[in-house]
Amino acid sequence: MNVFAVPGIPEVEPGDDIAELVEERIDLEPGDVLLVASTIVSKAEDRTANLADFPASPRAEELAARLGEISGEEKDPRFAQAVIEESTEIIMDAPFLLTSTRFGHIGVNAGIDRSNTGDADLLLLPKRPNESADRIRSALSQDVPVVVTDTCGRPFRHGQRGVALGWAGMPASRDWRGERDRDGHELEVTVESVVDELASAANLVSGEGDDGLPVVVVRDWEFGNHEGSDNLFRAVDSDFVRQALRGWEFARD
Amino acid sequence: MNVFAVPGIPEVEPGDDIAELVEERIDLEPGDVLLVASTIVSKAEDRTANLADFPASPRAEELAARLGEISGEEKDPRFAQAVIEESTEIIMDAPFLLTSTRFGHIGVNAGIDRSNTGDADLLLLPKRPNESADRIRSALSQDVPVVVTDTCGRPFRHGQRGVALGWAGMPASRDWRGERDRDGHELEVTVESVVDELASAANLVSGEGDDGLPVVVVRDWEFGNHEGSDNLFRAVDSDFVRQALRGWEFARD
Ligand SMILES: Nc1nc2c(ncn2[C@@H]2O[C@H](COP(=O)(O)OP(=O)(O)O)[C@@H](O)[C@H]2O)c(=O)[nH]1
Ligand SMILES: Nc1nc2c(ncn2[C@@H]2O[C@H](COP(=O)(O)OP(=O)(O)O)[C@@H](O)[C@H]2O)c(=O)[nH]1
Ligand SMILES: [Mn+2]
Ligand SMILES: [Mn+2]
Ligand SMILES: [Mn+2]
Ligand SMILES: [Mn+2]
Repeated sequence: MNVFAVPGIPEVEPGDDIAELVEERIDLEPGDVLLVASTIVSKAEDRTANLADFPASPRAEELAARLGEISGEEKDPRFAQAVIEESTEIIMDAPFLLTSTRFGHIGVNAGIDRSNTGDADLLLLPKRPNESADRIRSALSQDVPVVVTDTCGRPFRHGQRGVALGWAGMPASRDWRGERDRDGHELEVTVESVVDELASAANLVSGEGDDGLPVVVVRDWEFGNHEGSDNLFRAVDSDFVRQALRGWEFARD
Repeated sequence: MNVFAVPGIPEVEPGDDIAELVEERIDLEPGDVLLVASTIVSKAEDRTANLADFPASPRAEELAARLGEISGEEKDPRFAQAVIEESTEIIMDAPFLLTSTRFGHIGVNAGIDRSNTGDADLLLLPKRPNESADRIRSALSQDVPVVVTDTCGRPFRHGQRGVALGWAGMPASRDWRGERDRDGHELEVTVESVVDELASAANLVSGEGDDGLPVVVVRDWEFGNHEGSDNLFRAVDSDFVRQALRGWEFARD
C-alpha cells in the first residue's frame, strides 16, 4: 500500500473544482482511493465564515461565559453561537463544547477550524460530507472512491488523529462477521472502520500545519473480499458514552 | 509512504523471538517503522490462558450474571474474572465491561482476545507493551522504531480500528504546538497521535482474520521536524468521558 500526497495544490477558493485541481497534478489509477482534507472541501464550498456572521444568542452568551470562567480566558460568544448553529445536539457544554454535527459526527466545537482558514475567522465543516465526496468523485475522470477527512480528538487517548467525515464509492467499513480466524473460529472483531484507518494514514503525510498537502492518494490497497457497511456514526441508543455524557455535569475542584 | 506486511510469519509460539522471525523474512532499512500485532507479542510472551485459570470470584459472578441478563446469552463468570484480573479499574460494568488495563489503555474486556488465540481459550494483552516494543527493538539488527498494535472500538463511531498499545524508538505523537498554519497563525491542532495513525495504516494491510499478516513495515515515512510527546493515555483528571462513565448506570427500557 502506497500513501502519497498530491504536490502543488494552490490555496483553494470558493467554487474551485477539487477534482480538476487534483487531476491537473496527478494521474489517478483504478484501485486508488482519494483522500481530501475537509479544510479544502470547506473552502471550495464557501464554508468560511466570520465571527460577525454569528450574533450571539442568550444561550451562546451563557455558554461562553461559563467556558471563559473555567479556562480563565475570554471566550467569544459569537464562536459559541457558530458551534450551536452547526450542531444538532450539545452533548457536553463544559469544560469544552462537544456536539453532534448535522451529519452525525461528534467533535469538539462542531469541527469548526481556526487554523488554515485563509482570510476568514472560521472554517465550518462541509455541510454534508458524503455529498461532497460524491460530488468530487463524480467530477473525476477515474472511477475511484473519495473520502473527506478531518483531524480530531477522542476520549481516553490523548492527541488527535485523522478520521473520515464523508465517503463515496466504497463502504465505510469492512464487515468481518461470519469470517474465520486462523484456528477456524468465528471472529469477534466484526466491523473494521477502513475509512477512518485510511484517513489516519493520509494524515501521516499531510500533517496539520503549513505543508500545503490537503490531498492524498492511497494506491495498491485492497478492500478485499468482505461485506461492507456504511454505518459510521453510532445510533444514540447504542452509544453509551454519548448517553453518559448527557447526564454528566463538569465540576471544578 | 509505503505500508506492507511481512509475508510468511509462522504460528507464533511462547518464547519465539519476534525480531528474528521478522529479520529472517525481510531486510529492514533505516527510517522504517515496524508494527507488530499484539496478538503475536502475547503469544511469544506466553500470555495465552484458559478459562479454567480464572476461577470466578463473587464479583465476577455478579458481573457475568448481569451481562447475561442484559444480552440474553449465558456469560462465563471466569471470563469476567479474567477481565477483572487484567484491569486496574472497571469503568463500565454494563452493557459490556469497559476497563483500564494496567498500562493505561481503555478497552472492552481489557483487550482479551478470543480470536486467533491458537490452542488456548484466551489471549491476554502483553503485560507492558512499551517494554515489549523495547525488547523487540533491541533484538533487531536495524535501529528502527517498533509499535505494538491492537484493534479496538471507540465511542461515538461505529467499528474498530488499529491503535498503538506500546512503542519504542519514537515518540507517540507529533507535537505541533507553537507551529504555524499557512496563514501564519498558531495551530489549534496540537498533538497528533502518530503511533495510532501508524497502527491504523498497518491494520489496513493485516486485517482481522486468517490472513496471517501480523507484522507490517512502514517505509519512507518521516516523523518530520517536530517536537515529540509520549503522552498517549489520558490522565484521569483530563478524561471527562472516563469521569462521566464512572457515574453512569446502564438502564434498559
Ligand atoms: N495547498 C493547500 N493546502 C492546504 C490548504 N488548506 C489547508 N492545507 C493543507 O492541508 C493539510 C491539512 O490541513 P488541516 O488544517 O489540518 O485540515 P483538516 O485536517 O481538514 O482540518 C495541511 O498540510 C495544510 O497545510 C489550501 O487551501 N491549499
Ligand atoms: N503468521 C501469523 N499470523 C497471525 C498469528 N496470530 C494472528 N495472526 C494474524 O495477525 C493479524 C492480526 O490478527 P488479530 O487477531 O486481529 O490481532 P490483534 O489486532 O493484535 O488483536 C491477522 O492477519 C491474523 O491472521 C500468528 O501466530 N502467526
Ligand atoms: Mn479540521
Ligand atoms: Mn488536519
Ligand atoms: Mn486484539
Ligand atoms: Mn486486529
